[in-house]
Amino acid sequence: MLLFNSPISGNCYKVRLLLAHLGIPYERRDLDVVDRSSRGEVLDGLNPDLRVPTLVLDDGRPLAESGAILWYFGEGTRFVPGDRFARAKVLQWMFFEQYTHEPAIAVVRFLVAYSGEADRYAKVIERKTVDGYRALDALEAHLGRSDDPYVVGGTLTLADIALYAYTHVAHEGGFELGGYAAIGEWLDRVASEPGHVPIEA
Amino acid sequence: MLLFNSPISGNCYKVRLLLAHLGIPYERRDLDVVDRSSRGEVLDGLNPDLRVPTLVLDDGRPLAESGAILWYFGEGTRFVPGDRFARAKVLQWMFFEQYTHEPAIAVVRFLVAYSGEADRYAKVIERKTVDGYRALDALEAHLGRSDDPYVVGGTLTLADIALYAYTHVAHEGGFELGGYAAIGEWLDRVASEPGHVPIEA
Repeated sequence: MLLFNSPISGNCYKVRLLLAHLGIPYERRDLDVVDRSSRGEVLDGLNPDLRVPTLVLDDGRPLAESGAILWYFGEGTRFVPGDRFARAKVLQWMFFEQYTHEPAIAVVRFLVAYSGEADRYAKVIERKTVDGYRALDALEAHLGRSDDPYVVGGTLTLADIALYAYTHVAHEGGFELGGYAAIGEWLDRVASEPGHVPIEA
Repeated sequence: MLLFNSPISGNCYKVRLLLAHLGIPYERRDLDVVDRSSRGEVLDGLNPDLRVPTLVLDDGRPLAESGAILWYFGEGTRFVPGDRFARAKVLQWMFFEQYTHEPAIAVVRFLVAYSGEADRYAKVIERKTVDGYRALDALEAHLGRSDDPYVVGGTLTLADIALYAYTHVAHEGGFELGGYAAIGEWLDRVASEPGHVPIEA
């Protein structure tokens, strides 16, 4: 199968990280994340939102949205809990990541470190940095309050993979994680899981 | 169980619509959507993002994020397909709705029709209106291209419920849906399903 990918996108990294954990082979085709002019041509008919990650299965069927791709491969594995409530909690954190965490932290990181136009976007960066810290506060409070080592329960799930992707590179956007003790420990825990691969892999 | 609700929130309406279809009873507690000052107090410990909908099950366990709540009740019913790929497609459209559709269309609708400060937010409204039409274009192209009457396959799923919520009130934000023929037919189809309830219900 073929993954339309970006090497620096955390959303793509989520998919690569899960597929690495599961030992599922695939091909990659990297698209430029700054120059998006070819996306319409390449992804039309595959992803209504013309974004990466977009996956094309061996039979040609396309699947988009990192969360949906994670779910497709995660269902029935150790990365999706067998318990119905725990499963919904995994989705709760995945939706939180896409609605609240990513639109702040990933966007700031992109504008600061990859767009080449950080000055032009100074106001957006300032505003979304506040939102990003609010998302980190929410995650820190949850991890600090829970007895569980992972976001949902005692083992690594899709919720950890989804939240790890942009949290572990938030510093590239200027976020200071020093004050987030529970997040720091959790990041180390996720990265030390057998089968883990870095975003550069 | 108890739903922390807003009568005008499309995200809350998704939950109410599914629970109506399923005939599951619940209590509501309405929170003000404009004055959000009490949210921290009311929702702390229940929802890390301090937003509605937040659901508290009869045993006291809280669940947040409309998509996760829909999944919790939808799994194992006719609203979540039995086929693995179709299930992932439902999630694809639910994540699309939360990442691309809702942050444009729901926000414009809120600012135009409910915030009382539309003038102050004129620039945001202008920018997000463009984004909202792009989301509607993506949905129209999908519905127009498919032979299926619903977003994923031949029957109403959580994807329809998630996308219907803010699409059917997009006109409140000034969106002109006249040119979207496939969306128009689909909205009528969703609203004529047995068990459907309006957002006011």
